[in-house]
Parts: sequence; C-alpha cells; structure tokens
Amino acid sequence: MIDETIRPRLGIIGGLGPLASADFYFKLTRMTEALRDNEHVPAVILSVPQLPDRTEAILANHDGPLAPLKAAVSTLNELGVDCIAMPCNTAHHWFDRLAASSRAEIIHIGDAVVTEIRRRLGRGRVANLATRGTLVSGFYQDRIKAGGFEPCLPPGAEFQERVDSAIGLVKAGSIAKAAAETERALDLAQMAGADAALLGCTELSVVAASLSDSAGLFVVDSNAALARACLARLGFGSREARGLPTLPRLRGNGRLSWRAAQRA
Amino acid sequence: MIDETIRPRLGIIGGLGPLASADFYFKLTRMTEALRDNEHVPAVILSVPQLPDRTEAILANHDGPLAPLKAAVSTLNELGVDCIAMPCNTAHHWFDRLAASSRAEIIHIGDAVVTEIRRRLGRGRVANLATRGTLVSGFYQDRIKAGGFEPCLPPGAEFQERVDSAIGLVKAGSIAKAAAETERALDLAQMAGADAALLGCTELSVVAASLSDSAGLFVVDSNAALARACLARLGFGSREARGLPTLPRLRGNGRLSWRAAQRA
Repeated sequence: MIDETIRPRLGIIGGLGPLASADFYFKLTRMTEALRDNEHVPAVILSVPQLPDRTEAILANHDGPLAPLKAAVSTLNELGVDCIAMPCNTAHHWFDRLAASSRAEIIHIGDAVVTEIRRRLGRGRVANLATRGTLVSGFYQDRIKAGGFEPCLPPGAEFQERVDSAIGLVKAGSIAKAAAETERALDLAQMAGADAALLGCTELSVVAASLSDSAGLFVVDSNAALARACLARLGFGSREARGLPTLPRLRGNGRLSWRAAQRA
Repeated sequence: MIDETIRPRLGIIGGLGPLASADFYFKLTRMTEALRDNEHVPAVILSVPQLPDRTEAILANHDGPLAPLKAAVSTLNELGVDCIAMPCNTAHHWFDRLAASSRAEIIHIGDAVVTEIRRRLGRGRVANLATRGTLVSGFYQDRIKAGGFEPCLPPGAEFQERVDSAIGLVKAGSIAKAAAETERALDLAQMAGADAALLGCTELSVVAASLSDSAGLFVVDSNAALARACLARLGFGSREARGLPTLPRLRGNGRLSWRAAQRA
C-alpha cells in the first residue's frame, strides 16, 4: 500500500504520552551517526494519545488498550516497517499478544534497557522509577533479575508518590517541577542502596537531561536505550546521546507536587 | 484502512530533516493546551529523510522530490487525516501540486508564518533566514509583501553563507555551532535594518530556543508558527511555546563554519 520510495523502516507507536514520543524521536535522531538527512532512519510515528490509560487498565485488570494497540501494530505492518518500537514502558504489559499479532519484530524496551545497563554495570541493585502499571505487570523485575541484577525498591510510600507525581507533571507539561520530583525519587533510591536507577517510564526520559542531581547513581534512560536498540537492529551506527535538549528550570518552588500544581 | 479508534487527525511529512521534525512534534505537543495524553492531537508523522535534497532540485530546476512527496501525501490521506503539515519550508516549492493531489487540506507554512508575524508586528522589514531553494522558489517574498511587510535582504554574501552553514550544521548534529552561525546572521539582518527575522528553514527552528542573542529582532520560528496553525485548524487550544528545549552550548570555537567542522 505504500510507495517503496517512502517506505518507513521503523514503526513507532507514539503518543503514550506525546512528549515522551517527541523525546524518543529526538533521541533516535541525535543518536544516529549521520551528517545528512538521507543517512537517517526512514520512520513512521503513529501518535495515539487517545488510547485508554495503560496503568488504569492494568490496575483494574482489563485489556482496554489492547485492541487499539493491536490496530496500531496492524497499521504499521501495512506501512511496511521492518520493526516496531513502543516508547511507552507500561504498554509493554501487552507485549506478548502484540508481538504474536505482528509480522514486524517489536523491540522490547525492557530488553533494550537491560542491554544498556550492562554497558556500564556488571552487577548491582537497580531501582525502577516506573508507573504502578509497569510494576504490577512485572516484566522489568523479571528482566532485571535475568540480567544478573537485583531489583531495589525504596521502603515507604514516598518513592512511588514522587514517581507518580513526576509522571503526571510531565503529562501536564510541567517539566521543571517533574525534574525536581524525579531528583527526590533518585535521592530515595540512593538511600535505599541502589547502584543504578532506571527511568522506567518514558515520561521521565523527557526530564533526563534536565536532572541537576542524580544522587551519584547511574541513571538509565529507557527512551535512549530503546533508540539505541532500534538503531542496532536496523544496522545504523549510534553514538552517545550527547547534546540532548534540556528544559529550563523554574525558579523556586521545586518541590511542588503535581496535585498542588493542579490546584495552583 | 485504519481503525477509527486510532485514526490520526494531523498528518505530518517529516524527516526533512529529522531533527526539524522532532522539533515540530515537540513544539506541537508543548503548545497544546492539555493536561492529559488524550487531550493531545492524534497524529501521524511519516519521516522520509531518504527524499532527494529539495534545494538541490530547485536550483537545478528539476522536480525529483515531487513524486515521493505526492506519495507521502497519498499515504497520509489513506490514513484518514483531516489536514497535513510539512515542517520543511523548502518543500513548499511544490505546495500547489501537492495540495491539488490531496483530499486533506495542506496547511501552508508561509501562511502560518505571516499570521505569526502579524500577532506581534503591524508593519516593518522582515529578513528571511532560509535555504537558497526557498529563496529561489519565492513563495515567502510574495506572502511577506501580501501581508503588508517588506522583505529585507542583508547586502553581501556573508548573510546567506552563515544561514547555509547553520542549516548544514543542524543536519550534521552540531547544534551549538549552528546557533552561533544563526546569531551572526541575525546580527547582519539587524544591521541591514530588519525589524523581524524569520527562521524560514525548520532546521533553524531547532536552534531557536538556544539563541543567546537575537540582536534585538523579533524572531519568528516557522515550526512554532506551523504548530500553532495546525492546532487552530483542528480546534485545539494553543499556548505560548514556553519551556522549549535548549541544547547545550559548546565552549569556545563558536564561529567554526560547517565546512571547517566537516574537516575537523
């Protein structure tokens, strides 16, 4: 159905959320070893922000997002892509069923992340800053253990509250506040003995370059990891994700929570 | 051919170049009045960096890019989009023939830019930082005059050389050097009496937020203007493009030209 002169090689299910997808596209481009347009990856991003909330579905034990995700996979296959990436960790809850429905290989973000951790760390404790949906789904815990690492969950409720707040703030467009919330979660992970912290929600990838304090942890950006995996899979050279965009910090008020920001 | 639950409303012909498209997607998202994923625009970006160079085609007086651009328009129409945006100024050389082949309205970046200038300026002289292809095509000169403004072309060869260098540097991924070259071009525009400077190539939109010196000119970002026009056309609220990503400056060496960078 598509003219061969414009056929995309990489299909991207985007919009989950939109800023996380823009961040992925930016990183994919910045990490490609290219000096000219035509040395970049022909790609298609199907941005579907209208999908039901993934975490809500997992926590309520229903599969509302599965049918539209399958439709997106089907459309990308019709467009002739060689492989598919989903820059949304939580959506990987449905990975097996999506992969079973797809001709094109779907690259699992969790596999990409473990490969990325192993580039820097032989063993150690990994804290995961992820949605409650991703955590309930469990695919990261399995992969982190299978990769020879130990999951690290900071005690108490504050860690996950900060993570949830940061994710909500990115979705609402408040990047600087989200960075502050993420930094607090990283502090808690470091205090709990983590060696590495995984930004296991691509909303948090959006703030990765804006973090002024990573508490001495090795921070793994799941979007950057997925971008590198896509480039490797497609035979494109990749370089470090240098010179990524940072977003301006707001003055003061750095610890304002997402709910407080909504009320403000 | 596409499931209604995932139908995109906005089609984007991207990859011309890829970083300019990522910048457009970022700005479209940041400018949307939305607090949640599902308040954003369902969209599809067909990123076709493999297309023949647009400026080369215009200067050599051939239509090499037209057939693949038409194919992209056709694919986006098949995907059911309501309207189409091309975050590449030079490609608008073929606008009339593309629009004639499309069911979905194609939003002209030049119209979006003139609307954006009129938000801030009643009359005055507008310098255009654009590719030689866009300048030869002439669609901006016509629109700037029709909008009640006067085109301003800095004398001498240096202005266009700086613009060409900046565009090449963005395509090669050297954002900080591109910002320095753009700042020099803005200086020349200001010295030539311009009131406004149009970043009339979307590669230059990538450096817009990184400019530390705009020489007192009102700088119009063609990607941001196009994003605002798309949101208006689709009935989405838009806000100022605040908090856009900036890219880190390199130390020293700010005036290195693109060719020098290639040799380095």
